Amino acid sequence: MKKPKNRPLILVSNDDGYDAPGIYALVTSLRKIADVIVVAPATQQSATGHSITVQMPLRARRISRGKYFHGWAVEGTPVDSVKLGILTLLERTPDLVVSGINHGTNTSINIIYSGTVSAATEGAILGIPSIAISLGTHSLTADLSVAASFARVISSMVLKKGLPAGTLLNVNVPDVPKDKIRGVAITKQGKSWWDDGFEVRKDPSGKEYYWLVGTYNWDADTLADDHALKQNYISVTPLHYVLTDEKLFEELNDWKLPHPVKGVARAKPKKKYPRSLDDE
Amino acid sequence: MKKPKNRPLILVSNDDGYDAPGIYALVTSLRKIADVIVVAPATQQSATGHSITVQMPLRARRISRGKYFHGWAVEGTPVDSVKLGILTLLERTPDLVVSGINHGTNTSINIIYSGTVSAATEGAILGIPSIAISLGTHSLTADLSVAASFARVISSMVLKKGLPAGTLLNVNVPDVPKDKIRGVAITKQGKSWWDDGFEVRKDPSGKEYYWLVGTYNWDADTLADDHALKQNYISVTPLHYVLTDEKLFEELNDWKLPHPVKGVARAKPKKKYPRSLDDE
Repeated sequence: MKKPKNRPLILVSNDDGYDAPGIYALVTSLRKIADVIVVAPATQQSATGHSITVQMPLRARRISRGKYFHGWAVEGTPVDSVKLGILTLLERTPDLVVSGINHGTNTSINIIYSGTVSAATEGAILGIPSIAISLGTHSLTADLSVAASFARVISSMVLKKGLPAGTLLNVNVPDVPKDKIRGVAITKQGKSWWDDGFEVRKDPSGKEYYWLVGTYNWDADTLADDHALKQNYISVTPLHYVLTDEKLFEELNDWKLPHPVKGVARAKPKKKYPRSLDDE
Repeated sequence: MKKPKNRPLILVSNDDGYDAPGIYALVTSLRKIADVIVVAPATQQSATGHSITVQMPLRARRISRGKYFHGWAVEGTPVDSVKLGILTLLERTPDLVVSGINHGTNTSINIIYSGTVSAATEGAILGIPSIAISLGTHSLTADLSVAASFARVISSMVLKKGLPAGTLLNVNVPDVPKDKIRGVAITKQGKSWWDDGFEVRKDPSGKEYYWLVGTYNWDADTLADDHALKQNYISVTPLHYVLTDEKLFEELNDWKLPHPVKGVARAKPKKKYPRSLDDE
């Protein structure tokens, strides 16, 4: 059977490294609807957030895992991989970026630490519709089939409908048997939070070192991503990277922050920052 | 002269490393209004975003630079440093986290790559009022005095007024002579963007490597952080880490995303995700 021409191209990345089971399941599923190229970190990059490599150059090498899994392993972060893939390695611009399947949930506050989500965010920054997908367990032997199927479903839909500029979808799949999954919930980033701490240990020479540990406190808001997962729904959260706090923006104008240089402060009229500087 | 009792405690961090000039200028300025403890990365950590160390434990060692600069250097990221400082190293909870003075602007899209901003974000996540401060030049010999003064002005104000939970202030100071600074502008995260690419080079053995390069395109919106800087204003942008795109959230409910498991999909009524799952 000849491949149909003009198949869409999907760039697949992740943060667990190109050799993780999750990314393999994702590629195997997505190749049914598109050409798939992998550009993913050479090594485990969990919790690297939106880190990029600027002090050092990047290296990339060709990789394959079986018949349908081809691409590059990048000696860098997930964001490095997506940037290098889109801007340099790929022969044409991908129609979609899909990052995952992550081994472990990326909801609530975890989103901002997540390399998986950041890879998709970078796709969105570069103007490509992008999706992050994570499974609710760190087990490397978990059943990835529901997440892989749903990745294909939502990828097809995004290929068809597109996404608004500067947005991405963050998908989380609960780790429960297929028949327990109740459906798909459109959710918001929850307010679950970590009660963090560090375990202090001593190495054989008596020097202290610190391991991050924490207890997770679930947001019970019915629209929260975590709540949907707990109820055995797949959660789909639309994200953007607009970080301005609008409420505080309005309030800060009343703070009347003084000019930092003495003398100049006194000479200048104490007025609000003009809404249009060019009108001054 | 005896120190007044109950001085506020400020945790100072950065992403350029504890030995950068910027953090030294910051500490020197802030010690006039508070006790200051430094917990900062041992090495240069620019562009590490909200990266944390989870695969390895952290190490910290005591450091001093002269009479008033004391604290810890952490073998980790800016976020690691703030977490470890607040949760473990400091004897009491700080009243304020200040991150900087960064050598280089952190505005618009750069905010999400910035280790400086992420250190302050982590302070906010842990419930401490937090400020990031950056100077508009990468020069390590730049005049830090205006940024250092303004850091003290705004720190005093935040110590007095507090900040709403989950918010932080992102301050950027233009790199111009004192008398050119026109005042303080309350701004929003701009939409300036990088026209990115990679320079492909070959190492002595003929293998390719890639350097990230780019041209910065300034947002000319009068409320944008970058625009204020260009007009020689100090910009103060309130940030939060609420990433849900509300507009797309509303739209996605109309996508009617199908249940990923065949059979189950057909059996379930096609209705919207209930606003209150508990009411089902």
